[in-house]
Amino acid sequence: MIIDIHGHYTTAPKALETWRKRQIAGITNPAEMPRVSELHISDDELRESIEGNQLRLMRERGLDLTIFSPRASFMAHHIGDLHVSSAWAAICNELCYRVSELFPDHFIPAAMLPQSPGVDPATCIPELVKCVEEFGNVAINLNPDPSGGHWNSPPLSDRHWYPIYEKMVEYDIPAMIHVSTSCNPCFHTTGAHYLNADTTAFMQCLTSDLFNDFPTLRFIIPHGGGAVPYHWGRFRGLAQELKKPLLKDHLLHNIFFDTCVYHQPGIDLLTRVIPLDNILFASEMIGAVRGIDPETGHYFDDTRRYIEAAHIGPQERHKIYEANARRLYPRLDAALKAKGH
Amino acid sequence: MIIDIHGHYTTAPKALETWRKRQIAGITNPAEMPRVSELHISDDELRESIEGNQLRLMRERGLDLTIFSPRASFMAHHIGDLHVSSAWAAICNELCYRVSELFPDHFIPAAMLPQSPGVDPATCIPELVKCVEEFGNVAINLNPDPSGGHWNSPPLSDRHWYPIYEKMVEYDIPAMIHVSTSCNPCFHTTGAHYLNADTTAFMQCLTSDLFNDFPTLRFIIPHGGGAVPYHWGRFRGLAQELKKPLLKDHLLHNIFFDTCVYHQPGIDLLTRVIPLDNILFASEMIGAVRGIDPETGHYFDDTRRYIEAAHIGPQERHKIYEANARRLYPRLDAALKAKGH
Repeated sequence: MIIDIHGHYTTAPKALETWRKRQIAGITNPAEMPRVSELHISDDELRESIEGNQLRLMRERGLDLTIFSPRASFMAHHIGDLHVSSAWAAICNELCYRVSELFPDHFIPAAMLPQSPGVDPATCIPELVKCVEEFGNVAINLNPDPSGGHWNSPPLSDRHWYPIYEKMVEYDIPAMIHVSTSCNPCFHTTGAHYLNADTTAFMQCLTSDLFNDFPTLRFIIPHGGGAVPYHWGRFRGLAQELKKPLLKDHLLHNIFFDTCVYHQPGIDLLTRVIPLDNILFASEMIGAVRGIDPETGHYFDDTRRYIEAAHIGPQERHKIYEANARRLYPRLDAALKAKGH
Repeated sequence: MIIDIHGHYTTAPKALETWRKRQIAGITNPAEMPRVSELHISDDELRESIEGNQLRLMRERGLDLTIFSPRASFMAHHIGDLHVSSAWAAICNELCYRVSELFPDHFIPAAMLPQSPGVDPATCIPELVKCVEEFGNVAINLNPDPSGGHWNSPPLSDRHWYPIYEKMVEYDIPAMIHVSTSCNPCFHTTGAHYLNADTTAFMQCLTSDLFNDFPTLRFIIPHGGGAVPYHWGRFRGLAQELKKPLLKDHLLHNIFFDTCVYHQPGIDLLTRVIPLDNILFASEMIGAVRGIDPETGHYFDDTRRYIEAAHIGPQERHKIYEANARRLYPRLDAALKAKGH
């Protein structure tokens, strides 16, 4: 079985974006604020948006199951306040849940949180609880910078975030550390802000002793870990300067990387440098890079091709494709076992 | 000849730091503001600070010449105003110039600029002119984020920066794009802010047509280009989405990467992915990562070992060690030729 742990609902019906635009207009003009009940998306519309897109490509590429969360760039936690984020997160999470109900063999949901800049993350707990207990979510996406590129929240090692971590530990669910759209003109969203956030989050963990407080807490750093594997020597050296344990002991029981790296040399470096127990298959398809690579004739984000061509054995490939995901997402594993997988 | 294009004066005599602390105290208490003439560092002190440190390691590692600039993390452009930055830059640049006069065969200077948040970069021109015309500087370091991690300057493609570029083109000198200390608690300086800035700067160039306006402008992106080579497929794909030319045509006449990547797999990826005309030898020694790698028994920042072990031929190695630097830093080439090299 091949599990893609990083898929977003980037192809949701247009009505979703229309509703969001009305909601944003309603922030300045409350008379225009739409009610949640005004959004109507039928099951047929959901089916159509998935079958011709993600599911078609999953079949073409031989992928079985995607951990499916709301579109990352649309989370836009910097827009409006907690009330705005809460309504928006509830809508987006419900859509991913409905997709998982329509295609139970191919999609299982992960939740976005109703984060808002300067607001206590504990306010996200009710949505998190609903998503896990009612919607069967197996993970969350946690945004380390709800400001969208101004980076004015405390680092992930700060007690500010502990209410989320406590709930994650209770439910035994991992978090993918994933920012959203950059509203800072210095940072291109998918070309700079995403990768910077990955590197930043890793370093926030490296300089802290967060995992002493939460030994079972698990973070997935997406996009192949940002700059981290490429600079693994630098990070090993910095840990040594800071008198931290070896990275494998200090961080690698708790931090994992996905394979959203869109060329063979990058995947070859990832699999050479990072222990194979810490790598999870992912494509983030259909996402930031949708084109065909003229150098290969294949989609940039068809990451299975790179894993197939990597110099690793079948057991290692099985870890990346399935075993690591089942180990790190116990609720995913339980759901699969309940279906006889 | 082996030229290290990225060395900072990280080992300056203690008196420099003491003066800077007094200057910083003088920002809030003008009575304490020291005069420039109160800083006394003798030639013997300079010699001692270099001979036992950078020069010793250069000899051990077989490096001939270092392009030497003020300590990057101490630039701290976010501290004080233009007046404070101007005094500080002048002092630091003069020290690097004096080192180059004391060790003319081994050091040649590159200048920091007296940048200050929110101040027109044109104010940096007098210092730049002095450093090139009087001190023989062959390059500058340009900080794309003088705020120190708040990223509130316009992107490098903005006309805001054009006065600097016009002078660079006139003098035919390249700029290393290098931030300084992060005063944002989200970003560890050398583990996150430096690498993020490298990725950010590259993407600012990718999304723009800056090099149409300045076809001969040259940027060195340090630290192996941040996350860029590891995600080269992502960047090629994003350029395609944005209807830009192929990266080799769009950016690689103007953007170059150094080899400050502190392990073999990183250098192997860099030399596999990036054309060898675009890679310049560097170690950033003595810098962020000063320890010995327990996996190899050698210094993390002894990057020559990785270049020697890379699967490239002697002609390619010569490009990385010398030829690319002489091509991209014409004033360096002229200085070497004047000495018969």
